[in-house]
Amino acid sequence: MENNRPLILVTNDDGYKARGIQQLTEIAKEFGDVVVIAASESQSGKSHAITIKDPLRYKLLEKTEGLTRYVVRGTPVDGVKLAMCSILKTKPDLILSGINHGTNSSTSIVYSGTMGAAMEGAINQIPSIGLSLLDYRPDADFASAANHIRSIITTVLREGMPVGTCLNVNIPAVLEEEIKGIKVCRMADGLWKEVFESRNDPSGREYFWLSGSFHNREENATDNDEWALKNNYLSVVPIKVDMTAYDLLDQMKNWSFNVTRDAE
Amino acid sequence: MENNRPLILVTNDDGYKARGIQQLTEIAKEFGDVVVIAASESQSGKSHAITIKDPLRYKLLEKTEGLTRYVVRGTPVDGVKLAMCSILKTKPDLILSGINHGTNSSTSIVYSGTMGAAMEGAINQIPSIGLSLLDYRPDADFASAANHIRSIITTVLREGMPVGTCLNVNIPAVLEEEIKGIKVCRMADGLWKEVFESRNDPSGREYFWLSGSFHNREENATDNDEWALKNNYLSVVPIKVDMTAYDLLDQMKNWSFNVTRDAE
Repeated sequence: MENNRPLILVTNDDGYKARGIQQLTEIAKEFGDVVVIAASESQSGKSHAITIKDPLRYKLLEKTEGLTRYVVRGTPVDGVKLAMCSILKTKPDLILSGINHGTNSSTSIVYSGTMGAAMEGAINQIPSIGLSLLDYRPDADFASAANHIRSIITTVLREGMPVGTCLNVNIPAVLEEEIKGIKVCRMADGLWKEVFESRNDPSGREYFWLSGSFHNREENATDNDEWALKNNYLSVVPIKVDMTAYDLLDQMKNWSFNVTRDAE
Repeated sequence: MENNRPLILVTNDDGYKARGIQQLTEIAKEFGDVVVIAASESQSGKSHAITIKDPLRYKLLEKTEGLTRYVVRGTPVDGVKLAMCSILKTKPDLILSGINHGTNSSTSIVYSGTMGAAMEGAINQIPSIGLSLLDYRPDADFASAANHIRSIITTVLREGMPVGTCLNVNIPAVLEEEIKGIKVCRMADGLWKEVFESRNDPSGREYFWLSGSFHNREENATDNDEWALKNNYLSVVPIKVDMTAYDLLDQMKNWSFNVTRDAE
Protein backbone atom coordinates (compact mmCIF):
# COMPACT_ATOMS: atom_id res chain seq x y z
CA MET A 1 0.00 0.00 0.00
CA GLU A 2 1.53 3.25 -1.12
CA ASN A 3 1.50 6.16 1.28
CA ASN A 4 3.23 9.41 0.38
CA ARG A 5 1.85 11.37 3.26
CA PRO A 6 4.53 12.76 5.57
CA LEU A 7 5.05 10.93 8.86
CA ILE A 8 4.68 13.47 11.66
CA LEU A 9 5.73 12.84 15.26
CA VAL A 10 3.85 15.01 17.74
CA THR A 11 5.00 15.42 21.33
CA ASN A 12 4.95 17.96 24.17
CA ASP A 13 5.93 18.51 27.79
CA ASP A 14 2.50 19.13 29.28
CA GLY A 15 1.33 15.52 28.90
CA TYR A 16 -0.98 13.87 26.38
CA LYS A 17 -4.16 15.18 28.01
CA ALA A 18 -3.20 18.83 27.53
CA ARG A 19 -5.34 20.94 25.24
CA GLY A 20 -2.27 22.24 23.40
CA ILE A 21 -1.14 18.84 22.08
CA GLN A 22 -4.69 17.90 21.17
CA GLN A 23 -5.11 21.00 19.02
CA LEU A 24 -1.64 20.54 17.48
CA THR A 25 -2.53 16.92 16.66
CA GLU A 26 -5.65 18.09 14.83
CA ILE A 27 -3.57 20.47 12.70
CA ALA A 28 -0.85 17.84 12.11
CA LYS A 29 -3.46 15.36 10.77
CA GLU A 30 -4.15 17.76 7.90
CA PHE A 31 -0.54 17.33 6.76
CA GLY A 32 0.25 13.66 7.22
CA ASP A 33 0.07 10.48 9.24
CA VAL A 34 0.50 11.35 12.87
CA VAL A 35 2.11 9.48 15.74
CA VAL A 36 1.71 11.13 19.13
CA ILE A 37 3.97 10.29 22.05
CA ALA A 38 3.62 12.18 25.31
CA ALA A 39 3.84 11.62 29.04
CA SER A 40 0.84 11.10 31.29
CA GLU A 41 1.95 13.90 33.60
CA SER A 42 3.47 17.33 33.03
CA GLN A 43 7.17 17.39 32.14
CA SER A 44 7.50 21.18 32.27
CA GLY A 45 11.00 22.41 33.02
CA LYS A 46 12.56 19.08 32.04
CA SER A 47 14.76 20.72 29.38
CA HIS A 48 16.80 18.16 27.44
CA ALA A 49 16.81 15.70 30.37
CA ILE A 50 16.97 11.96 29.72
CA THR A 51 16.16 9.11 32.10
CA ILE A 52 19.20 7.03 32.90
CA LYS A 53 18.58 5.46 36.29
CA ASP A 54 14.96 4.34 35.82
CA PRO A 55 13.36 2.13 33.20
CA LEU A 56 11.16 3.67 30.52
CA ARG A 57 7.74 2.38 29.53
CA TYR A 58 5.25 3.27 26.84
CA LYS A 59 1.76 2.11 26.03
CA LEU A 60 -0.53 2.35 23.01
CA LEU A 61 -3.49 4.63 23.73
CA GLU A 62 -5.26 4.73 20.37
CA LYS A 63 -4.79 3.61 16.78
CA THR A 64 -7.10 4.90 14.06
CA GLU A 65 -6.67 5.76 10.36
CA GLY A 66 -3.72 8.15 10.17
CA LEU A 67 -3.35 8.60 13.94
CA THR A 68 -1.56 6.52 16.57
CA ARG A 69 -1.13 7.75 20.13
CA TYR A 70 1.24 6.50 22.82
CA VAL A 71 1.74 7.49 26.42
CA VAL A 72 5.31 7.33 27.74
CA ARG A 73 6.74 7.28 31.22
CA GLY A 74 9.74 9.53 30.70
CA THR A 75 10.84 13.00 29.68
CA PRO A 76 9.98 14.62 26.32
CA VAL A 77 13.45 13.73 24.99
CA ASP A 78 13.03 10.12 26.19
CA GLY A 79 9.78 10.04 24.20
CA VAL A 80 11.42 11.26 21.00
CA LYS A 81 14.26 8.77 21.42
CA LEU A 82 11.85 5.89 22.09
CA ALA A 83 9.74 6.83 19.07
CA MET A 84 12.76 6.99 16.76
CA CYS A 85 14.49 3.85 18.00
CA SER A 86 11.71 1.57 19.09
CA ILE A 87 8.23 2.62 17.92
CA LEU A 88 8.52 4.08 14.42
CA LYS A 89 9.60 1.93 11.50
CA THR A 90 10.79 4.92 9.47
CA LYS A 91 12.34 8.26 10.37
CA PRO A 92 9.64 10.93 10.81
CA ASP A 93 9.52 13.72 8.22
CA LEU A 94 8.64 16.29 10.85
CA ILE A 95 8.55 16.61 14.63
CA LEU A 96 6.04 19.01 16.19
CA SER A 97 6.40 19.70 19.91
CA GLY A 98 3.71 21.58 21.81
CA ILE A 99 1.65 23.57 21.75
CA ASN A 100 3.09 24.45 25.13
CA HIS A 101 0.93 26.10 27.76
CA GLY A 102 3.25 29.05 28.49
CA THR A 103 6.13 30.94 26.92
CA ASN A 104 9.41 29.47 25.70
CA SER A 105 10.85 32.67 24.27
CA SER A 106 14.32 34.10 24.96
CA THR A 107 16.40 32.03 27.42
CA SER A 108 13.31 30.10 28.58
CA ILE A 109 14.30 27.74 25.78
CA VAL A 110 17.04 26.18 27.89
CA TYR A 111 14.59 25.01 30.58
CA SER A 112 11.91 23.91 28.14
CA GLY A 113 10.93 20.28 27.63
CA THR A 114 9.01 21.39 24.55
CA MET A 115 12.19 22.70 22.97
CA GLY A 116 14.26 19.78 24.33
CA ALA A 117 12.14 17.47 22.17
CA ALA A 118 12.49 19.76 19.13
CA MET A 119 16.26 19.96 19.59
CA GLU A 120 16.48 16.17 19.85
CA GLY A 121 14.84 16.14 16.42
CA ALA A 122 17.43 18.61 15.13
CA ILE A 123 20.29 16.46 16.47
CA ASN A 124 18.78 13.56 14.53
CA GLN A 125 18.44 15.63 11.33
CA ILE A 126 14.64 15.71 11.40
CA PRO A 127 12.93 19.05 10.67
CA SER A 128 11.47 20.03 14.04
CA ILE A 129 9.30 22.81 15.37
CA GLY A 130 8.59 23.66 19.00
CA LEU A 131 5.45 25.73 19.55
CA SER A 132 4.35 27.63 22.65
CA LEU A 133 1.46 29.92 23.52
CA LEU A 134 1.94 32.74 26.02
CA ASP A 135 -0.90 31.48 28.17
CA TYR A 136 -0.29 29.07 31.05
CA ARG A 137 -3.94 28.23 31.69
CA PRO A 138 -5.07 24.63 31.08
CA ASP A 139 -8.06 25.99 29.12
CA ALA A 140 -5.96 28.33 26.96
CA ASP A 141 -7.32 28.89 23.45
CA PHE A 142 -4.87 27.63 20.84
CA ALA A 143 -7.17 28.24 17.87
CA SER A 144 -6.29 31.89 17.22
CA ALA A 145 -2.93 31.06 15.63
CA ALA A 146 -4.02 27.88 13.78
CA ASN A 147 -3.64 29.41 10.32
CA HIS A 148 -0.21 30.79 11.09
CA ILE A 149 0.85 27.40 12.44
CA ARG A 150 -0.38 25.77 9.22
CA SER A 151 1.66 28.30 7.26
CA ILE A 152 4.84 27.54 9.28
CA ILE A 153 4.38 23.76 8.87
CA THR A 154 3.76 24.16 5.12
CA THR A 155 6.91 26.25 4.81
CA VAL A 156 9.12 23.85 6.77
CA LEU A 157 7.83 20.83 4.81
CA ARG A 158 8.62 22.74 1.60
CA GLU A 159 11.98 24.31 2.54
CA GLY A 160 13.30 21.66 4.91
CA MET A 161 15.59 22.62 7.77
CA PRO A 162 19.42 22.75 7.59
CA VAL A 163 21.19 20.02 9.56
CA GLY A 164 21.39 20.73 13.28
CA THR A 165 18.68 23.40 13.37
CA CYS A 166 15.04 23.64 14.46
CA LEU A 167 12.45 26.37 15.00
CA ASN A 168 11.25 27.91 18.26
CA VAL A 169 7.78 29.36 17.62
CA ASN A 170 6.03 31.44 20.27
CA ILE A 171 2.49 32.72 19.94
CA PRO A 172 1.08 35.84 21.63
CA ALA A 173 -2.02 35.23 23.73
CA VAL A 174 -4.31 37.54 21.76
CA LEU A 175 -7.35 37.18 19.56
CA GLU A 176 -6.88 35.95 15.99
CA GLU A 177 -7.66 39.34 14.49
CA GLU A 178 -5.04 40.99 16.73
CA ILE A 179 -2.18 38.80 15.46
CA LYS A 180 -0.10 40.93 13.10
CA GLY A 181 1.81 38.10 11.40
CA ILE A 182 5.05 36.13 11.72
CA LYS A 183 8.44 37.62 12.66
CA VAL A 184 11.56 35.60 11.97
CA CYS A 185 13.99 36.88 14.58
CA ARG A 186 16.77 36.10 17.05
CA MET A 187 16.26 35.10 20.68
CA ALA A 188 16.34 37.94 23.20
CA ASP A 189 18.88 38.12 26.01
CA GLY A 190 16.96 37.73 29.24
CA LEU A 191 16.80 35.67 32.39
CA TRP A 192 14.45 34.37 35.04
CA LYS A 193 15.05 36.02 38.39
CA GLU A 194 14.04 33.56 41.06
CA VAL A 195 12.37 34.17 44.34
CA PHE A 196 12.48 31.10 46.53
CA GLU A 197 9.45 31.07 48.70
CA SER A 198 10.36 29.52 52.04
CA ARG A 199 7.81 27.47 53.98
CA ASN A 200 7.88 24.96 56.80
CA ASP A 201 6.47 21.47 56.51
CA PRO A 202 4.27 19.97 59.29
CA SER A 203 7.38 18.70 61.07
CA GLY A 204 8.96 22.17 61.01
CA ARG A 205 11.53 21.53 58.26
CA GLU A 206 12.09 24.35 55.78
CA TYR A 207 11.38 23.86 52.10
CA PHE A 208 11.37 26.11 49.06
CA TRP A 209 9.21 26.63 46.01
CA LEU A 210 10.96 27.86 42.92
CA SER A 211 9.18 30.79 41.37
CA GLY A 212 10.39 33.79 39.46
CA SER A 213 9.77 36.39 36.84
CA PHE A 214 11.33 36.99 33.45
CA HIS A 215 13.60 39.99 32.92
CA ASN A 216 14.31 41.14 29.39
CA ARG A 217 17.86 42.55 29.27
CA GLU A 218 17.24 44.12 25.87
CA GLU A 219 14.17 46.28 26.48
CA ASN A 220 15.02 48.58 23.58
CA ALA A 221 15.84 46.00 20.91
CA THR A 222 13.30 45.57 18.10
CA ASP A 223 14.78 42.52 16.37
CA ASN A 224 14.17 39.73 18.87
CA ASP A 225 11.39 37.41 20.00
CA GLU A 226 10.42 39.43 23.06
CA TRP A 227 9.76 42.47 20.88
CA ALA A 228 7.82 40.41 18.34
CA LEU A 229 5.56 38.87 20.99
CA LYS A 230 4.98 42.19 22.74
CA ASN A 231 3.89 43.58 19.39
CA ASN A 232 1.45 40.73 18.69
CA TYR A 233 3.58 38.81 16.17
CA LEU A 234 4.30 35.10 16.29
CA SER A 235 8.07 34.84 16.87
CA VAL A 236 9.96 32.25 14.83
CA VAL A 237 13.55 31.80 16.02
CA PRO A 238 15.87 29.43 14.16
CA ILE A 239 17.83 27.51 16.80
CA LYS A 240 21.04 25.57 16.35
CA VAL A 241 22.45 22.63 18.25
CA ASP A 242 26.03 23.86 17.85
CA MET A 243 26.45 26.03 20.91
CA THR A 244 30.05 27.02 20.18
CA ALA A 245 30.67 30.74 20.83
CA TYR A 246 32.65 31.35 17.62
CA ASP A 247 33.40 35.02 18.36
CA LEU A 248 34.88 34.06 21.70
CA LEU A 249 36.75 31.17 20.08
CA ASP A 250 38.64 33.76 17.99
CA GLN A 251 39.33 35.95 21.04
CA MET A 252 40.56 32.99 23.06
CA LYS A 253 43.35 32.37 20.61
CA ASN A 254 45.08 35.23 22.40
CA TRP A 255 44.64 33.67 25.83
CA SER A 256 47.78 32.21 27.28
CA PHE A 257 46.87 29.19 29.37
CA ASN A 258 50.40 28.28 30.33
CA VAL A 259 50.68 30.72 33.18
CA THR A 260 52.03 29.80 36.53
CA ARG A 261 49.66 31.03 39.18
CA ASP A 262 51.10 33.70 41.49
CA ALA A 263 51.75 32.44 44.96
CA GLU A 264 49.36 33.92 47.49
CA MET B 1 36.93 41.83 58.03
CA GLU B 2 38.29 42.34 54.58
CA ASN B 3 38.34 39.39 52.24
CA ASN B 4 39.51 39.80 48.67
CA ARG B 5 39.57 36.12 47.86
CA PRO B 6 37.21 35.17 45.01
CA LEU B 7 33.96 33.49 46.01
CA ILE B 8 33.75 30.21 44.11
CA LEU B 9 30.58 28.13 43.82
CA VAL B 10 31.29 24.46 43.15
CA THR B 11 28.60 22.07 41.97
CA ASN B 12 28.18 18.92 39.87
CA ASP B 13 25.64 16.37 38.67
CA ASP B 14 27.11 13.23 40.23
CA GLY B 15 26.24 14.22 43.79
CA TYR B 16 28.34 15.61 46.63
CA LYS B 17 29.95 12.26 47.47
CA ALA B 18 31.50 11.85 44.03
CA ARG B 19 35.26 11.81 43.77
CA GLY B 20 35.17 14.38 40.95
CA ILE B 21 33.59 17.17 43.00
CA GLN B 22 35.83 16.42 45.95
CA GLN B 23 38.96 16.81 43.86
CA LEU B 24 37.57 19.94 42.17
CA THR B 25 36.80 21.42 45.60
CA GLU B 26 40.41 20.86 46.69
CA ILE B 27 41.65 22.75 43.62
CA ALA B 28 39.04 25.53 44.05
CA LYS B 29 40.19 26.13 47.65
CA GLU B 30 43.59 27.20 46.30
CA PHE B 31 41.87 30.09 44.49
CA GLY B 32 39.24 31.40 46.86
CA ASP B 33 36.51 30.85 49.41
CA VAL B 34 34.47 27.89 48.30
CA VAL B 35 30.78 27.10 48.67
CA VAL B 36 29.79 23.64 47.46
CA ILE B 37 26.19 22.79 46.62
CA ALA B 38 25.36 19.38 45.20
CA ALA B 39 22.66 16.74 45.34
CA SER B 40 22.84 13.62 47.49
CA GLU B 41 22.16 11.37 44.51
CA SER B 42 23.32 11.40 40.88
CA GLN B 43 21.65 13.95 38.62
CA SER B 44 23.27 12.69 35.42
CA GLY B 45 21.33 13.45 32.26
CA LYS B 46 19.32 16.18 33.97
CA SER B 47 20.44 18.81 31.44
CA HIS B 48 19.09 22.27 32.30
CA ALA B 49 16.04 20.82 34.11
CA ILE B 50 14.45 22.73 36.98
CA THR B 51 12.05 21.45 39.62
CA ILE B 52 8.65 23.08 39.36
CA LYS B 53 6.16 20.62 40.83
CA ASP B 54 8.08 19.56 43.95
CA PRO B 55 9.55 21.59 46.78
CA LEU B 56 13.29 22.05 47.06
CA ARG B 57 15.33 21.56 50.20
CA TYR B 58 18.92 22.11 51.15
CA LYS B 59 20.96 21.37 54.24
CA LEU B 60 24.31 22.53 55.58
CA LEU B 61 26.82 19.67 55.59
CA GLU B 62 30.01 21.38 56.72
CA LYS B 63 31.37 24.82 57.46
CA THR B 64 35.09 25.35 57.97
CA GLU B 65 37.54 28.16 57.20
CA GLY B 66 37.06 29.00 53.52
CA LEU B 67 34.76 26.05 52.78
CA THR B 68 31.01 25.62 53.21
CA ARG B 69 29.20 22.60 51.83
CA TYR B 70 25.46 22.12 51.23
CA VAL B 71 23.45 19.19 49.99
CA VAL B 72 20.40 20.01 47.88
CA ARG B 73 17.37 18.00 46.88
CA GLY B 74 16.99 19.15 43.29
CA THR B 75 18.71 19.30 39.93
CA PRO B 76 22.12 20.94 39.32
CA VAL B 77 20.38 24.07 37.95
CA ASP B 78 18.07 24.16 41.01
CA GLY B 79 21.21 24.11 43.16
CA VAL B 80 22.81 27.04 41.32
CA LYS B 81 19.57 29.02 41.52
CA LEU B 82 19.15 28.27 45.24
CA ALA B 83 22.77 29.26 45.91
CA MET B 84 22.44 32.55 44.04
CA CYS B 85 19.04 33.55 45.40
CA SER B 86 18.90 32.08 48.86
CA ILE B 87 22.25 30.87 50.22
CA LEU B 88 24.97 33.27 49.06
CA LYS B 89 25.05 36.87 50.21
CA THR B 90 27.07 38.02 47.20
CA LYS B 91 27.27 36.92 43.58
CA PRO B 92 29.98 34.29 43.11
CA ASP B 93 33.05 35.29 41.10
CA LEU B 94 33.26 31.86 39.50
CA ILE B 95 31.16 28.73 39.14
CA LEU B 96 32.95 25.40 38.72
CA SER B 97 30.79 22.40 37.80
CA GLY B 98 32.19 18.87 37.89
CA ILE B 99 34.50 17.19 37.58
CA ASN B 100 31.99 14.95 35.84
CA HIS B 101 32.54 11.21 35.77
CA GLY B 102 32.16 10.77 31.98
CA THR B 103 32.34 12.80 28.78
CA ASN B 104 30.37 15.94 27.99
CA SER B 105 31.97 16.68 24.65
CA SER B 106 30.17 17.38 21.36
CA THR B 107 26.35 17.24 21.61
CA SER B 108 26.55 15.42 24.97
CA ILE B 109 26.48 18.96 26.36
CA VAL B 110 22.71 19.22 25.81
CA TYR B 111 21.96 16.27 28.13
CA SER B 112 24.51 17.24 30.73
CA GLY B 113 23.59 18.40 34.22
CA THR B 114 27.22 19.47 34.66
CA MET B 115 26.91 21.86 31.73
CA GLY B 116 23.36 22.86 32.70
CA ALA B 117 24.79 24.29 35.93
CA ALA B 118 27.60 26.08 34.04
CA MET B 119 25.14 27.55 31.55
CA GLU B 120 22.94 28.78 34.38
CA GLY B 121 26.01 30.66 35.58
CA ALA B 122 26.48 32.13 32.09
CA ILE B 123 22.84 33.27 31.97
CA ASN B 124 23.48 35.05 35.27
CA GLN B 125 26.69 36.67 33.99
CA ILE B 126 28.98 34.67 36.25
CA PRO B 127 32.17 33.23 34.70
CA SER B 128 31.48 29.48 34.69
CA ILE B 129 33.39 26.36 33.76
CA GLY B 130 32.02 22.84 33.36
CA LEU B 131 34.64 20.09 33.65
CA SER B 132 34.34 16.43 32.68
CA LEU B 133 36.74 13.49 32.61
CA LEU B 134 36.34 10.78 29.97
CA ASP B 135 36.11 8.09 32.62
CA TYR B 136 32.74 6.98 34.02
CA ARG B 137 34.14 4.92 36.88
CA PRO B 138 33.40 6.07 40.45
CA ASP B 139 37.08 5.62 41.30
CA ALA B 140 38.31 7.57 38.25
CA ASP B 141 41.57 9.44 38.79
CA PHE B 142 41.07 13.18 38.41
CA ALA B 143 44.59 14.14 39.46
CA SER B 144 46.30 13.82 36.08
CA ALA B 145 44.83 17.07 34.74
CA ALA B 146 45.01 19.08 37.98
CA ASN B 147 47.69 21.47 36.71
CA HIS B 148 45.82 22.12 33.49
CA ILE B 149 42.62 22.78 35.44
CA ARG B 150 44.55 25.27 37.62
CA SER B 151 45.78 26.97 34.46
CA ILE B 152 42.23 27.25 33.02
CA ILE B 153 40.85 28.65 36.30
CA THR B 154 43.72 31.17 36.51
CA THR B 155 43.06 32.27 32.96
CA VAL B 156 39.30 32.68 33.42
CA LEU B 157 39.78 34.64 36.67
CA ARG B 158 42.23 36.90 34.81
CA GLU B 159 40.39 37.30 31.47
CA GLY B 160 36.79 37.03 32.65
CA MET B 161 34.13 35.60 30.36
CA PRO B 162 32.00 37.63 27.93
CA VAL B 163 28.33 37.92 28.91
CA GLY B 164 26.29 34.83 28.06
CA THR B 165 29.22 32.46 27.63
CA CYS B 166 30.89 29.69 29.62
CA LEU B 167 33.50 26.99 29.03
CA ASN B 168 33.01 23.29 28.41
CA VAL B 169 36.23 21.52 29.43
CA ASN B 170 36.72 17.82 28.75
CA ILE B 171 39.72 15.85 29.92
CA PRO B 172 41.11 12.72 28.25
CA ALA B 173 41.41 9.68 30.54
CA VAL B 174 45.15 9.27 30.21
CA LEU B 175 48.18 9.59 32.44
CA GLU B 176 49.46 13.07 33.29
CA GLU B 177 52.58 12.67 31.16
CA GLU B 178 50.45 11.65 28.16
CA ILE B 179 48.39 14.88 28.17
CA LYS B 180 49.65 17.05 25.32
CA GLY B 181 48.10 20.33 26.45
CA ILE B 182 44.95 22.42 26.02
CA LYS B 183 43.06 22.87 22.72
CA VAL B 184 40.58 25.71 22.42
CA CYS B 185 38.13 24.43 19.82
CA ARG B 186 34.54 24.17 18.62
CA MET B 187 32.13 21.38 19.58
CA ALA B 188 31.97 18.44 17.17
CA ASP B 189 28.80 17.46 15.35
CA GLY B 190 27.77 14.08 16.69
CA LEU B 191 24.91 12.23 18.28
CA TRP B 192 24.05 9.40 20.63
CA LYS B 193 22.47 6.48 18.82
CA GLU B 194 20.21 4.73 21.25
CA VAL B 195 19.50 1.08 21.65
CA PHE B 196 16.54 0.49 23.91
CA GLU B 197 17.02 -2.75 25.70
CA SER B 198 13.63 -4.37 26.22
CA ARG B 199 12.97 -6.48 29.32
CA ASN B 200 9.92 -7.80 31.14
CA ASP B 201 9.19 -7.06 34.77
CA PRO B 202 8.05 -9.86 37.18
CA SER B 203 4.42 -9.22 36.20
CA GLY B 204 5.26 -9.59 32.50
CA ARG B 205 5.08 -5.91 31.52
CA GLU B 206 7.68 -4.66 29.08
CA TYR B 207 10.12 -1.93 30.06
CA PHE B 208 13.13 -0.33 28.41
CA TRP B 209 16.58 0.80 29.46
CA LEU B 210 18.04 3.71 27.55
CA SER B 211 21.55 2.99 26.40
CA GLY B 212 23.50 4.06 23.37
CA SER B 213 26.81 4.90 21.82
CA PHE B 214 28.23 8.16 20.54
CA HIS B 215 28.71 8.68 16.82
CA ASN B 216 31.03 11.42 15.62
CA ARG B 217 29.66 12.81 12.35
CA GLU B 218 32.93 14.63 11.64
CA GLU B 219 35.49 11.84 11.78
CA ASN B 220 37.92 13.76 9.56
CA ALA B 221 37.75 17.18 11.22
CA THR B 222 40.78 18.26 13.23
CA ASP B 223 39.43 21.44 14.82
CA ASN B 224 36.84 20.13 17.27
CA ASP B 225 36.65 18.67 20.76
CA GLU B 226 36.39 15.04 19.63
CA TRP B 227 39.67 15.36 17.73
CA ALA B 228 41.36 17.12 20.65
CA LEU B 229 40.33 14.42 23.14
CA LYS B 230 41.27 11.56 20.82
CA ASN B 231 44.69 13.19 20.52
CA ASN B 232 45.17 13.50 24.29
CA TYR B 233 44.46 17.22 24.60
CA LEU B 234 42.07 18.81 27.08
CA SER B 235 39.30 20.34 24.95
CA VAL B 236 38.10 23.82 25.92
CA VAL B 237 34.96 24.84 24.02
CA PRO B 238 33.50 28.32 24.55
CA ILE B 239 29.71 27.91 24.76
CA LYS B 240 27.07 30.57 24.34
CA VAL B 241 23.56 30.81 25.70
CA ASP B 242 22.24 32.51 22.54
CA MET B 243 21.23 29.53 20.42
CA THR B 244 19.98 31.60 17.47
CA ALA B 245 21.10 30.09 14.14
CA TYR B 246 22.17 33.41 12.59
CA ASP B 247 23.12 31.92 9.19
CA LEU B 248 19.69 30.37 8.90
CA LEU B 249 18.08 33.61 10.10
CA ASP B 250 19.51 35.30 6.98
CA GLN B 251 18.34 32.49 4.70
CA MET B 252 14.84 32.54 6.19
CA LYS B 253 14.35 36.11 5.06
CA ASN B 254 13.65 34.55 1.67
CA TRP B 255 11.03 32.19 3.04
CA SER B 256 7.49 33.12 2.19
CA PHE B 257 5.22 32.04 5.02
CA ASN B 258 2.01 33.28 3.50
CA VAL B 259 1.40 30.28 1.31
CA THR B 260 -1.91 28.54 1.01
CA ARG B 261 -1.38 24.84 1.37
CA ASP B 262 -2.17 22.83 -1.75
CA ALA B 263 -5.32 20.77 -1.41
CA GLU B 264 -4.56 17.08 -1.22
